[in-house]
Amino acid sequence: MGNSIVQYIFKDISFSKKEINFIESKLKKLKLEKGTTILKAGDEVNSQYYVYNGCLRTFFIDKSGKEHTLQFAINDWWISDYTAFFTVSEAKMHIETIQEATLYKISKKGMEELFEKIPQLETFFRKKMERAFASFQNRILASLAQSAKERYVSFISTYPNIEQTVKNYHIASYLGITTESLSRIRKEISNN
Amino acid sequence: MGNSIVQYIFKDISFSKKEINFIESKLKKLKLEKGTTILKAGDEVNSQYYVYNGCLRTFFIDKSGKEHTLQFAINDWWISDYTAFFTVSEAKMHIETIQEATLYKISKKGMEELFEKIPQLETFFRKKMERAFASFQNRILASLAQSAKERYVSFISTYPNIEQTVKNYHIASYLGITTESLSRIRKEISNN
Repeated sequence: MGNSIVQYIFKDISFSKKEINFIESKLKKLKLEKGTTILKAGDEVNSQYYVYNGCLRTFFIDKSGKEHTLQFAINDWWISDYTAFFTVSEAKMHIETIQEATLYKISKKGMEELFEKIPQLETFFRKKMERAFASFQNRILASLAQSAKERYVSFISTYPNIEQTVKNYHIASYLGITTESLSRIRKEISNN
Repeated sequence: MGNSIVQYIFKDISFSKKEINFIESKLKKLKLEKGTTILKAGDEVNSQYYVYNGCLRTFFIDKSGKEHTLQFAINDWWISDYTAFFTVSEAKMHIETIQEATLYKISKKGMEELFEKIPQLETFFRKKMERAFASFQNRILASLAQSAKERYVSFISTYPNIEQTVKNYHIASYLGITTESLSRIRKEISNN
């Protein structure tokens, strides 16, 4: 079972064969086409998703109908509306595939059962959460302290090679700027 | 030991007397005057702090010397530069008391020892982290989708009664606006 998806996802943990089977029984593989909505605002959020490949986008639609991108997820990331997932409330966010994607879905209940039997998994998810928290902290600081150009540069380094995949208005809505400003920034950078 | 600070901090967990003593041995009580810096940028971050009473502020100083407030912490909150704390890197943030405060300090090493002996504490901190993560997510969404006035209203509801304690420029630097804009928003609200 050395090639199990379980060992691929939870790289640094060694499991017994029995544990691998148990974890596998909690994971549901999904192969999705580009443009598939896996979560929409108002949904109950019972699951999170591991991105095996492809690219997804979490976004919020405001009262005026404008989209704001909270996050992109590429291979080896986890994605959900975590606020709703953790606080057992309705989703505020939408999540869609912006590329064909293979995901592994795990339910909240499934996770709790895993934590009970395999405490290392609780540690694994705690550490994931810590890193995600750190990246959100950096994003808040950036929104307070950095120029749009600086935020674009750090976007590029967080998501290398993503620009071929996502639309300009996705990137602009992640940076909180217009697509015109995004073009101007790109031109400025390529002229340097 | 029903009145132990341990039972106060970790409200929903029942501990044996031995466990309480063990946890107490990892907590260091600090009584600090207003204006005390407990962390500054560049420091190694080995601890987090439980706020028993008082008020603290986490802020970032940008290249131009401008302060940006990431967070306030009031009673029953935890505070640290979590990015540095989790990723074992240097602090980017400063933390200061903006009111006389009583804190309980716990080191990273102390926490790991606690997690090993009392796994419920790992669950406790995971859940704290999940809620903090959710609040950061909401803050990012607010910075993308809300007006300064809406952000001010949600600030007031997150930190009720904090306005008497903190300076206007702290609040403005949390909202990412000038103190003049803050005054204008307050006037607008009181005229409604």
